[in-house]
Amino acid sequence: MKKIVVFGAGLSATYLISYLEKNAEAYAWDLQIADRDLALVKSKCRSSKTTCIEIDISDSIAVRKLISGSSLVVSMLPASLHINIAKECLSQSIHLATASYLSEEMKELDSEVKENDLIFLNECGLDPGIDHLSAMKLLDGIRNEGGEITEFESFTGGLIAPDCVDNPWEYKFTWNPRNVVLAGSGGAVKFIHKGQYKFIPYHRVFRRTEVVSIDNYGKFEGYANRDSLKYRETYGLENVQTMYRGTFRRLGFSKAWNCFVQLGATDDSYLLPHSKQMSHRDFINTFLPFHPTDSIELKLKSYLGIDQDDIYLWEKLESTGIFSEELIGLDKDATPAQLLQCILEKKWSLKESDRDMIVMWHNVTYLKNGEAHGVESSLVCKGQDRQHTAMAQTVGLPLAIGCKLILTNQISDRGCLLPIKPEFYTPILKELEEYSIVFKEKRL
Amino acid sequence: MKKIVVFGAGLSATYLISYLEKNAEAYAWDLQIADRDLALVKSKCRSSKTTCIEIDISDSIAVRKLISGSSLVVSMLPASLHINIAKECLSQSIHLATASYLSEEMKELDSEVKENDLIFLNECGLDPGIDHLSAMKLLDGIRNEGGEITEFESFTGGLIAPDCVDNPWEYKFTWNPRNVVLAGSGGAVKFIHKGQYKFIPYHRVFRRTEVVSIDNYGKFEGYANRDSLKYRETYGLENVQTMYRGTFRRLGFSKAWNCFVQLGATDDSYLLPHSKQMSHRDFINTFLPFHPTDSIELKLKSYLGIDQDDIYLWEKLESTGIFSEELIGLDKDATPAQLLQCILEKKWSLKESDRDMIVMWHNVTYLKNGEAHGVESSLVCKGQDRQHTAMAQTVGLPLAIGCKLILTNQISDRGCLLPIKPEFYTPILKELEEYSIVFKEKRL
Repeated sequence: MKKIVVFGAGLSATYLISYLEKNAEAYAWDLQIADRDLALVKSKCRSSKTTCIEIDISDSIAVRKLISGSSLVVSMLPASLHINIAKECLSQSIHLATASYLSEEMKELDSEVKENDLIFLNECGLDPGIDHLSAMKLLDGIRNEGGEITEFESFTGGLIAPDCVDNPWEYKFTWNPRNVVLAGSGGAVKFIHKGQYKFIPYHRVFRRTEVVSIDNYGKFEGYANRDSLKYRETYGLENVQTMYRGTFRRLGFSKAWNCFVQLGATDDSYLLPHSKQMSHRDFINTFLPFHPTDSIELKLKSYLGIDQDDIYLWEKLESTGIFSEELIGLDKDATPAQLLQCILEKKWSLKESDRDMIVMWHNVTYLKNGEAHGVESSLVCKGQDRQHTAMAQTVGLPLAIGCKLILTNQISDRGCLLPIKPEFYTPILKELEEYSIVFKEKRL
Repeated sequence: MKKIVVFGAGLSATYLISYLEKNAEAYAWDLQIADRDLALVKSKCRSSKTTCIEIDISDSIAVRKLISGSSLVVSMLPASLHINIAKECLSQSIHLATASYLSEEMKELDSEVKENDLIFLNECGLDPGIDHLSAMKLLDGIRNEGGEITEFESFTGGLIAPDCVDNPWEYKFTWNPRNVVLAGSGGAVKFIHKGQYKFIPYHRVFRRTEVVSIDNYGKFEGYANRDSLKYRETYGLENVQTMYRGTFRRLGFSKAWNCFVQLGATDDSYLLPHSKQMSHRDFINTFLPFHPTDSIELKLKSYLGIDQDDIYLWEKLESTGIFSEELIGLDKDATPAQLLQCILEKKWSLKESDRDMIVMWHNVTYLKNGEAHGVESSLVCKGQDRQHTAMAQTVGLPLAIGCKLILTNQISDRGCLLPIKPEFYTPILKELEEYSIVFKEKRL
């Protein structure tokens, strides 16, 4: 029996746990799931052979004891908690897998991990995760046929299924709302376009979008991620002329979202005085010039230069309830970003029957025999309901399959890894197809 | 003889040194001026009795020795260097005076300074400095007559004299250009207006200006400083309904400057790759969308929504030379803000004969016997030439007079002080009038 310990039984762990349970008998896995909330663990485990454990992750002795004798540890905890688990795995010579970004402190363990003949797999969820798997398969395929990549674009969006749309943004929070509210903030966005470095300040990001059509699903708009150049070396694209990575929303989202950015309502750097007592309307008025009689609606239109007849934009803003006299309702003063999140959660939280939708799209241009070619690769994946989201599935399954590959000795590479080599992407993408997670390629 | 040591002989020290020299004999002062550049010190000293000293400020033993036996030390060095001098002054029981903002670390010395019966005078230049003196005189005057202050606005601008204007911005750098390029950045601007807290994000600051007329000098526009509320307690304005502090420019400046802000050209947070080899034009193009044939001028107009017939805005942008093929010419890669500064310095540096102009304006509304009253107080002050600027005069003279007050035992207060009490503002403002630095009051 190979012992596997999974830390964290939250939303993103649902499909991972279910996959590991399903395969436990065939592969002789002793599965142990630990969370600070034992009831949550029990609700996620279907097999009587799985051990459910309550744990305080800050109790390092309990953690050490729990993972003792394991072959593999999976951490589905918040990213900042991985490093202590990683160090414990290193000292006990246990493989580790997470869906989170490879952190600087994790990177520092790389040589020790290699020396101990271990695999610490990172970024093996959706984004990061399936984006790496699918991009590398596409890029390697082109390179193997003698193509030279000149341009690479990649977008991912966590959206709502078209038949569940009930607001004019065609959007709901399907993942961490805080990340959505803060998206794009924290420094200039950078990318490379036709050989030129390009930089966009935060307050312009949502006005520099690109429209992409995906067969049968219509049009999406993409805005740029903070650092499109991050994976240039990882993907072997040092000489590429265009590299642009971003986030998908439905058309018109970004222009409307930009109103919040322009107001300063997404600022997370200061506490708004007296915001505990504020109504939605007061909150918006905080960012508008004072006037004794003019309405907040008119002041907003005038301040942001919103045309009187721009009904598409206006209905989006109105639909969020920002003009309501309702109290925001946080129990202490908060930052503008926290307050905006609270207001939006009232309208943008998933209903029980709501189904989310993941959309991923890569676009590659390359030269072959002196001629330019293009290829698009796209994925659309829908969830079942609020508990069984496409997001949870596409985060949990690649990681679970990655775990199986490690446990069945199919990975030859060692160290702190990203799933960018064929030994990862070929079997994971193939098995994901069984779950209807299928990329469609289209030659241009 | 009372020994006075002045650290720093740069532009802002010119008038201070000259004032102290002029009064040295009458008051029996032994004046010693120290700078790392001995030639600079010698160029500023007119009297043979003044001691000129070359010093390395990082050599704490030399500093200790130099100030030994002094009655007063004046620091005209960059603000970050004050604290070490302050600690040395404290240990040797010497008074200290600077024109810089009272820092947190300086504040921490307050009780020790008091215990040693010392005065550490801060913020006694122009802004901060004359703004405090004149505001407090105005506010105390109203309060002494039984008025209750309801609104307070205050603006200061370092500008160019109208007859020296030779660019459509009606602006040149008369002080530290870096501060001008970074003005407003670093967090949301906050103020209070008619009892409501208001917040403006950096990218909107230059579009929320207020127009002010000053008799004989025409109109100015003011944009908000970072934290208008900073002096609310200092000025005794805790219950005021409006408090707004800002910076004056000539009309149209802010709208044009906002173009740089919108582009992201004032960002100081990252180094622009290959900027060492960039032309002015390349620099601007960095922030604009790629196009194989469209001109940078047209892309800029389209991107920022500049009307084709907005000639006032366009002539400002063109006049800076931003569309020139000329190399920027820095010797290493720099931040956008540093590059923009370098481009603007080519056009906005003072010519030898250029005269600068300081404009300061306070506007106070108050209730007296149940009736609302208003009063404005304004100062306009012009320099002589590039070496003898109004800025240098209005920074140096208040501090020099402050030194005289300390040395002649006219200040009863002790500790880390701001010049906000009558014992400071009455004699300093009175003596400044001899130098034609005169506030005009106007009842509204």
